[in-house]
Amino acid sequence: MAMREKCLAYRAVLDKGYVELIDVMGNDNTVVAAARVSYLGESKGPDKDKKLISYMMKHGHTSPFEHVVFQWRIKCPLFVRSQWHRHRTWAYNELSRRYTSENIEFYYPVEWRSQDTKNKQGSLDVPIEVSVDFDGHMLNSLTLYGYMIECGIAKEQARMILPQNLYTIFYGTVDLHNLFHFLKLRNSEHAQWEIKEYAIAMEDIIKDIVPWSYEAWRELK
Amino acid sequence: MAMREKCLAYRAVLDKGYVELIDVMGNDNTVVAAARVSYLGESKGPDKDKKLISYMMKHGHTSPFEHVVFQWRIKCPLFVRSQWHRHRTWAYNELSRRYTSENIEFYYPVEWRSQDTKNKQGSLDVPIEVSVDFDGHMLNSLTLYGYMIECGIAKEQARMILPQNLYTIFYGTVDLHNLFHFLKLRNSEHAQWEIKEYAIAMEDIIKDIVPWSYEAWRELK
Amino acid sequence: MAMREKCLAYRAVLDKGYVELIDVMGNDNTVVAAARVSYLGESKGPDKDKKLISYMMKHGHTSPFEHVVFQWRIKCPLFVRSQWHRHRTWAYNELSRRYTSENIEFYYPVEWRSQDTKNKQGSLDVPIEVSVDFDGHMLNSLTLYGYMIECGIAKEQARMILPQNLYTIFYGTVDLHNLFHFLKLRNSEHAQWEIKEYAIAMEDIIKDIVPWSYEAWRELK
Amino acid sequence: MAMREKCLAYRAVLDKGYVELIDVMGNDNTVVAAARVSYLGESKGPDKDKKLISYMMKHGHTSPFEHVVFQWRIKCPLFVRSQWHRHRTWAYNELSRRYTSENIEFYYPVEWRSQDTKNKQGSLDVPIEVSVDFDGHMLNSLTLYGYMIECGIAKEQARMILPQNLYTIFYGTVDLHNLFHFLKLRNSEHAQWEIKEYAIAMEDIIKDIVPWSYEAWRELK
Repeated sequence: MAMREKCLAYRAVLDKGYVELIDVMGNDNTVVAAARVSYLGESKGPDKDKKLISYMMKHGHTSPFEHVVFQWRIKCPLFVRSQWHRHRTWAYNELSRRYTSENIEFYYPVEWRSQDTKNKQGSLDVPIEVSVDFDGHMLNSLTLYGYMIECGIAKEQARMILPQNLYTIFYGTVDLHNLFHFLKLRNSEHAQWEIKEYAIAMEDIIKDIVPWSYEAWRELK
Repeated sequence: MAMREKCLAYRAVLDKGYVELIDVMGNDNTVVAAARVSYLGESKGPDKDKKLISYMMKHGHTSPFEHVVFQWRIKCPLFVRSQWHRHRTWAYNELSRRYTSENIEFYYPVEWRSQDTKNKQGSLDVPIEVSVDFDGHMLNSLTLYGYMIECGIAKEQARMILPQNLYTIFYGTVDLHNLFHFLKLRNSEHAQWEIKEYAIAMEDIIKDIVPWSYEAWRELK
Repeated sequence: MAMREKCLAYRAVLDKGYVELIDVMGNDNTVVAAARVSYLGESKGPDKDKKLISYMMKHGHTSPFEHVVFQWRIKCPLFVRSQWHRHRTWAYNELSRRYTSENIEFYYPVEWRSQDTKNKQGSLDVPIEVSVDFDGHMLNSLTLYGYMIECGIAKEQARMILPQNLYTIFYGTVDLHNLFHFLKLRNSEHAQWEIKEYAIAMEDIIKDIVPWSYEAWRELK
Repeated sequence: MAMREKCLAYRAVLDKGYVELIDVMGNDNTVVAAARVSYLGESKGPDKDKKLISYMMKHGHTSPFEHVVFQWRIKCPLFVRSQWHRHRTWAYNELSRRYTSENIEFYYPVEWRSQDTKNKQGSLDVPIEVSVDFDGHMLNSLTLYGYMIECGIAKEQARMILPQNLYTIFYGTVDLHNLFHFLKLRNSEHAQWEIKEYAIAMEDIIKDIVPWSYEAWRELK
């Protein structure tokens, strides 16, 4: 593989994925300072600062949280990536299958969940015992793709036969306010289990970086 | 299928896709009026108005073009959709395969293009004569997917085995400035042929709706 | 004055200001269609459609509301404009005092409100009876400005002596989701009375254009 | 005054203003890593990395530059602030004159520039020798404002009589791509001299933080 910069925090997600925190700008004090510029106020110690953060969160004063910024490196299946990229307040750079045909990896779920009959877009936490030739289909997809590349078919075209559980890698940069919005939607009972795993991992990382903001947000959530 | 509102313009794209212009707000006069608010100026007739649009385009005064807005309905393969949704200035609503397992359709390319050896992300306009069992793979994918759904596996999970040439449908709303930016990148020699076909179709539609703006943009492009 | 296109709705605000709805794209049906594309569902009549809008509003599914777009023309004092332009999801084009020194008008408040002692950023609905030479200051400002322009001082520099109750005019284009966000913050007890008057006028206009969406939003607000 | 965190760089601008770089995330290597994720490529040393940055800049591949983020603290006159806040890709938090009536300071220009007769929105670099009672007007404004505050008039209302050369302070956070866009428009011959001074100061700071990106951008500009 390739150039890997150091990362500040790492969590494994799913069978081969991960979230890495590459870089961060600011912390709870950044939020406090941005809020206090409104009235040129001085810090009055940690207790008051913490209360100020809580107050702003509760009253929808979201702008001070936008000065704290995180850069992530994510490895996830394509179908998770597509849900992710609907969040338009992140900056993204992604691995392109127009460029490279290497490192083809697929997500293998541990179990199949059954369709939720009430919530039409959801699944139940009930594993289904069925014999699905998933492994065979993955092997066939990989073989066909390899053959197409070998024949000289353009990578940008050959990729179209690969299934949506193909892993991809991308950088994503987002501010704290918009990260909270992402986490609210994706670490929720309405979210698909797979992307929820990523959201949980990210929460686990940021709770130590912006503890006051995180606590204030959790209370609202 | 389902509820289809009337559309203002329609172009077939690829084998089963399309772009439809659903609605539009404003025209060249909207751009002129927005520009003239700067100095409360009166219109001095079509010639001067047209020149004003050309001047603004040339000097990067992009804001007047943001008051003209288009709503589109697009049917395209997933790999085109993913390139499209990287444009974060559009509003999107897309068919969700968490909800529905119906209307599964795949894009069948007319020919396989050969890999460009100089431009590593591109393809050459040279068809490759190879015998790839593409049809068989599509059939196998559809069969496996149907079987998984029948077994009661959640749609949100079953979809992961479907290849990226699966067709999807989405609404996209964008202003004229950001549409021009999209078209500049996607109707270009660096763009993948498939998404370029969509960009060409959209240009063909808007050139009659905002003729002065379109002409001014083409001159710059 | 100048080129004035027809407008769809007009409300006078403050002593010399207004909001005009210049153009609109879409209505409640647009929201419904965008929501239904998720599952390719058919309309099941007005009752179900109305409920769908209410459901989406309640559960934070904001994207379908982004396909309805409004273009406004606003005349308001500079200090209102500055609060307004903090909303970064609108497209703006504004009268520029670098270009023109004409049509100088000031906002004259009907009464002076007293400072709220609890809410440090607010005012009480208690008029203060004081003799402030406001009119004199307006006259002096206008006279000094006129003299500077006459002397040949650049308009972009001369404008700096004009007070913040100077009226300005701008176009603003915004989608329904982000308009609701604006109205939530600006038609609120925390908002300054002057900008609240503009928000009230806009609500009065849109309630007839997107009645179901408006009702659903009011219930949440 | 108040809580002042340490800053990474400081430049005085105009008579009482400044730009301070408060914090930064990333550098040229961040841009390179984000670009290389496309093809999982390894760094091939500084020469190739620098060329890659130059290539991306030249071909409009702007997304890798969005992972480098700067937080600024700015002190500038209101009329500069209003031009600044039209840039909607920054996050802002500003001193509010609804909250505080302290630290009232005005910008005093060193000279009056004459109106450009060709470029109607511009000024000539020709000082005008006129006797304008600017100091008197500033004093009168300050006196009237102080009187209104003393009378108990709400700060949010009293501020309206203050002229637009009143100094304000704000935090602004922006990524490198959008900072370059700001600098292109504001460090240009079309920009007002006062805001141009701020743009020049910012360029002077970032050229040492992202030297390769800055050089690549300068070549294009």
